[in-house]
Amino acid sequence: MKTINTSPISGAQELLPEQQTIFDTLKSKIHHIYKQHGYYNIETPCIERTEILLAKAGGETEKQIYEVTKTDEKTKATQALRFDHTVPLARYIVEYENSLNFPLKIQQIGLNFRGERAQKGRFREFYQCDIDIVGRGTLPLTYDADVVSTLLDAFQAFELDTPILARISNRKILSGLLNALELSDQAIEISHIIDHAEKVTPEQTKVSLEELKLNKSQVKTILDFINLNGPRSEVITALENLEIKNNTFEAGVTELDQVLGLLETIGLSDQITADMKIIRGLDYYTGTVFEFILPEYKNIGSIAGGGRYENLTSYFSNQAFPGVGGSIGLTRLFYILTEANLLDSNNQELTEYALIPISEAETEYAFKLADELRRKNHSATIILTDKKLNDKLSHASKISANGIIIGEAETTTGQLKVKDFATGKTRDFSFVTEGIIEPSATDPTDFWTDPSEPSTFL
Amino acid sequence: MKTINTSPISGAQELLPEQQTIFDTLKSKIHHIYKQHGYYNIETPCIERTEILLAKAGGETEKQIYEVTKTDEKTKATQALRFDHTVPLARYIVEYENSLNFPLKIQQIGLNFRGERAQKGRFREFYQCDIDIVGRGTLPLTYDADVVSTLLDAFQAFELDTPILARISNRKILSGLLNALELSDQAIEISHIIDHAEKVTPEQTKVSLEELKLNKSQVKTILDFINLNGPRSEVITALENLEIKNNTFEAGVTELDQVLGLLETIGLSDQITADMKIIRGLDYYTGTVFEFILPEYKNIGSIAGGGRYENLTSYFSNQAFPGVGGSIGLTRLFYILTEANLLDSNNQELTEYALIPISEAETEYAFKLADELRRKNHSATIILTDKKLNDKLSHASKISANGIIIGEAETTTGQLKVKDFATGKTRDFSFVTEGIIEPSATDPTDFWTDPSEPSTFL
Repeated sequence: MKTINTSPISGAQELLPEQQTIFDTLKSKIHHIYKQHGYYNIETPCIERTEILLAKAGGETEKQIYEVTKTDEKTKATQALRFDHTVPLARYIVEYENSLNFPLKIQQIGLNFRGERAQKGRFREFYQCDIDIVGRGTLPLTYDADVVSTLLDAFQAFELDTPILARISNRKILSGLLNALELSDQAIEISHIIDHAEKVTPEQTKVSLEELKLNKSQVKTILDFINLNGPRSEVITALENLEIKNNTFEAGVTELDQVLGLLETIGLSDQITADMKIIRGLDYYTGTVFEFILPEYKNIGSIAGGGRYENLTSYFSNQAFPGVGGSIGLTRLFYILTEANLLDSNNQELTEYALIPISEAETEYAFKLADELRRKNHSATIILTDKKLNDKLSHASKISANGIIIGEAETTTGQLKVKDFATGKTRDFSFVTEGIIEPSATDPTDFWTDPSEPSTFL
Repeated sequence: MKTINTSPISGAQELLPEQQTIFDTLKSKIHHIYKQHGYYNIETPCIERTEILLAKAGGETEKQIYEVTKTDEKTKATQALRFDHTVPLARYIVEYENSLNFPLKIQQIGLNFRGERAQKGRFREFYQCDIDIVGRGTLPLTYDADVVSTLLDAFQAFELDTPILARISNRKILSGLLNALELSDQAIEISHIIDHAEKVTPEQTKVSLEELKLNKSQVKTILDFINLNGPRSEVITALENLEIKNNTFEAGVTELDQVLGLLETIGLSDQITADMKIIRGLDYYTGTVFEFILPEYKNIGSIAGGGRYENLTSYFSNQAFPGVGGSIGLTRLFYILTEANLLDSNNQELTEYALIPISEAETEYAFKLADELRRKNHSATIILTDKKLNDKLSHASKISANGIIIGEAETTTGQLKVKDFATGKTRDFSFVTEGIIEPSATDPTDFWTDPSEPSTFL
């Protein structure tokens, strides 16, 4: 009986071993795809100096920060837990600038911490899986397509039974539009309304814009603008038809056209769309912005996002380090995909073989067989309890895919039988001194064709 | 120029990307071996409730704990960062007892935090790689050999060019010995002296024992005892020759004999030794105890350790969960192995191919080729800067193993050349619409036999 509350802290993911294998598989797929695309992994500490974390942030971020104090230090906390990977990356780049190769392609897969109000699907300790490409001085636009295509590849590796869509825009387009409409002074308020347009009705968006004292023509232009979405050619033509005479606007349209064009050419047309509703917050991004969604699951909202920033390190250095990056919020995504039943539980990786020595006399044999199996890159565990055989088998069926019972006869002949717990079928398995001879799984003679036939195995 | 101090916090590991790949390789090898041995991964949160972390600990541990407070909460901290994996595992087992399969084989590879005084080779934020086997009520002794052999396999996977040795003892032996010598009241002080015996001269150990008012015969017996080490048969015989009449002593000797015997039978004789100096701290362990060392690098000290504990969860539950576990302190180990030049820098995993389009016209082709290479499970990155070709090649040689320049001719013919940056040699590489035809690396005709011959590639 429990003598203390043993639940994990509120807002943390804690999984049973079976679920954890599914989570781990997704995490390692992301790492693998990032690596295949040439993103080198780095790890910065979870604990940072507070002055680094708050160099840029204010307001909300500050409130969400977890400060860290040693028990025996009663002074004010000067350290805190990182709330994202971007600030530590900026610090890292300034610190090691002379040892790094630019453009620098970096992945960071690790825990971030935010003291948000705990609620369903919101986490205070969570995995973010980031990629970033950072240049010294300049960074060609083409890298924006590198980031988007890498994230799309990562999601492809999930093998979800539902499509994925990257919604892409460019912040310069809105910025130029508002400038041309002489609304730059209200850019923050208007961006905020567009950013929230999908959470309210179109009528509410209109009212919100009118409340800012915009004239009818301005409201109409903005509403028309934010409803632009679809394939590159359509949206680019529609943007050009707005006939906005503004350099920033035109630069944004050209950049968007180029990024989408490259993504189309490499065969990703079905997975990308231009969408002028994409803003990604009010500061930070300065060019390409994108969000990933599952179009068949609109309620889920964004499952990844990112964009281009003019200068990553402006709070830490005088030198310009432009970058483009994206992030998958894996802990939240795993929660969402599990809730939506979108994760194939076949991703659950069981130990391949459970070896079950009948008595202590077969223990050594079991250890040797396990060793041999592992040398051949299989996973194997040995069940060493002194329980009854049926209890051992029941345990084996829960923790492994196949069971091999080892009795006196088996140790003498080296002729074993393997039971596949999923199908209930049994096949021969030979372990002789020279090694294991595994029967081909496709050879029907290896399986007992009639399941009703009595088996010497069970 | 820096405008702020950008160093990481004191006592944290922060690596350049090249070093990080070596660290990551070791970490993933450990995970893989643990998994092959049937240990399921779990992750508990880094942040725990303080009452959980301090349920057992007192004194030193409490001082080393990092408390965690939300900036906007001015109340006393009730949460802290975990300082090991064992306490969270105990909480986890009590919390999910009814959903877990016992004996439970668990691995935990993650960050722990200790506010120790920062010094060379000591870390405040560090990776521990733990395995534990936990039973409900009972747990057969044989599992102790499972843990030791798994850790040995993990170290084998490091492919270090130096032997590894597991020094093994059993706490019951010393406990029974002291009981027989009527010294149980001084067990803590004596254990402490033995635990430190390797850090001082034999004479100092003798003096320390004498200072406890032990008589000559007691001092002699203890000194003889702690100098016992070597192969199983020798040490077991020597222990029996001590003719200690005590049940605990005899049980300890029998257990040690069995664990070592099984490890010998499965072919690990050269990697294990019995050693009565092994204590592993003063509380916690109750049976088998072990420490791993690199015998050729005595100064390094223990690189892993663990043992058997009677009851993991006694602070959280009335029910008994005996266990046996071990842990590799990977961050410290990586530091040590790097300092000792024991890590093969060949473990550094570079991106396999850097594709270098000469002009923008070849960008699409490069994206397609990269995609094709990744489909065939290679890693590939594209260098998209507008720098001169030689600068691009120089960048490529730093971040990847091979370079492929793509010019107009290459996009037309699909006949490419790959330069191996390590050897400087160039070979043909065919990328046609049907896919990539990779030449066999063993075919000498693929390589330019005379390096002095002018190459069309560079």
